[in-house]
Amino acid sequence: MDPVRVIEIKKSVFESNDRDADALRKELKNKGIFLLNLMSSPGSGKTTTLIRTINLIKDRVRVAVMEADIDSDVDAIKIKEATGIQSIQLHTGGMCHLDAEMTRQGLEGLEGLDGTDLVILENVGNLVCPAEFDTGSSANAMILSVPEGHDKPLKYPLMFSVCELVLVNKTDVMPYFDFDLDKCTEYVHMRNPRAQVIPICAKTGEGVEKFARWLLEKVSSAKQ
Amino acid sequence: MDPVRVIEIKKSVFESNDRDADALRKELKNKGIFLLNLMSSPGSGKTTTLIRTINLIKDRVRVAVMEADIDSDVDAIKIKEATGIQSIQLHTGGMCHLDAEMTRQGLEGLEGLDGTDLVILENVGNLVCPAEFDTGSSANAMILSVPEGHDKPLKYPLMFSVCELVLVNKTDVMPYFDFDLDKCTEYVHMRNPRAQVIPICAKTGEGVEKFARWLLEKVSSAKQ
Repeated sequence: MDPVRVIEIKKSVFESNDRDADALRKELKNKGIFLLNLMSSPGSGKTTTLIRTINLIKDRVRVAVMEADIDSDVDAIKIKEATGIQSIQLHTGGMCHLDAEMTRQGLEGLEGLDGTDLVILENVGNLVCPAEFDTGSSANAMILSVPEGHDKPLKYPLMFSVCELVLVNKTDVMPYFDFDLDKCTEYVHMRNPRAQVIPICAKTGEGVEKFARWLLEKVSSAKQ
Repeated sequence: MDPVRVIEIKKSVFESNDRDADALRKELKNKGIFLLNLMSSPGSGKTTTLIRTINLIKDRVRVAVMEADIDSDVDAIKIKEATGIQSIQLHTGGMCHLDAEMTRQGLEGLEGLDGTDLVILENVGNLVCPAEFDTGSSANAMILSVPEGHDKPLKYPLMFSVCELVLVNKTDVMPYFDFDLDKCTEYVHMRNPRAQVIPICAKTGEGVEKFARWLLEKVSSAKQ
């Protein structure tokens, strides 16, 4: 397997994460870079979704991915092998989330950041803590997979409040699970009335073009 | 729906969680009560597994359940309605885990604790933080569901290190997912060579008797 760059990120020394996040967001905006913070439970299909999506858009925009995990570099390698784009691994050293300073350390580990249009941060698989820390991203999105159940917005309110996009993944196994997409959408909107819900199946590719279009529009608006 | 008791638990004021956890474990042992701390990702099937299992053992041992969630009381109500046993909801107020003092607050909210043989704590759905805090439980177990993937022990090492039992749930959907049980078991044993792996399907009941027997043995040994 191809080696990928692995960065051991340190805990933030900044007192105010919110202030640092705002500063990072502004810097990225000035450079015309769109940073997406993608969150989810473990095993919801973040990496598979990214591979499908990046292969649809990589000829039109320059994309890089930062894979955050407590340990291992399997995801960064998968992305690199399956898409050919720049993919680096961030090791959080046991931390359950990323904050803005940790995200900045990741961005500094990317080669040629200034020529990049879109950076996707795959946050640590966790529906709780990542929602509490502003990474400085341009937007937050999350993936809820069908096997997890449609009641998750009831149990993890903050996660669904901070995301402007919810991808409902693994729609191919809908017949085998008691998952109600209408109820799910209703619960998502209880937490964030403006959140967009896009059902996808990363495995078969269904619905992924819609997410790709959403990303391209965001990248385009980051340049304005 | 039947109302259930909801306890708003406060963050621990104790400096040393480990010390408090050891004290709680000793107290429970003296009372002959077995406390199981059950952890997993969101949506892995903790509640469904508990309902199946409790219905198999409730005539032989006196069981109570503490459902921890950031918000909502749907799980405590589900358990109560489906099993008839005592079930209470612990609200963590945004906290991503339970520590020993928070667990103690939950136990104090149970009626007739001293006559109880087995208390099951369903921890917050999260593969990261709950593993870092000793709850004072007699044992830790976790559920990994098939849709999450067999690589999770590589990415969440601590969780798999601290658990003596790993239930692999949703085996009925194995044909639809790329899940390798042998690899999973191998990865689990990388983290904890003595961990037991039991495949189950909480939906159909397959394998659940094995978990029930494990629990009954633990309850019996807590009395010795």
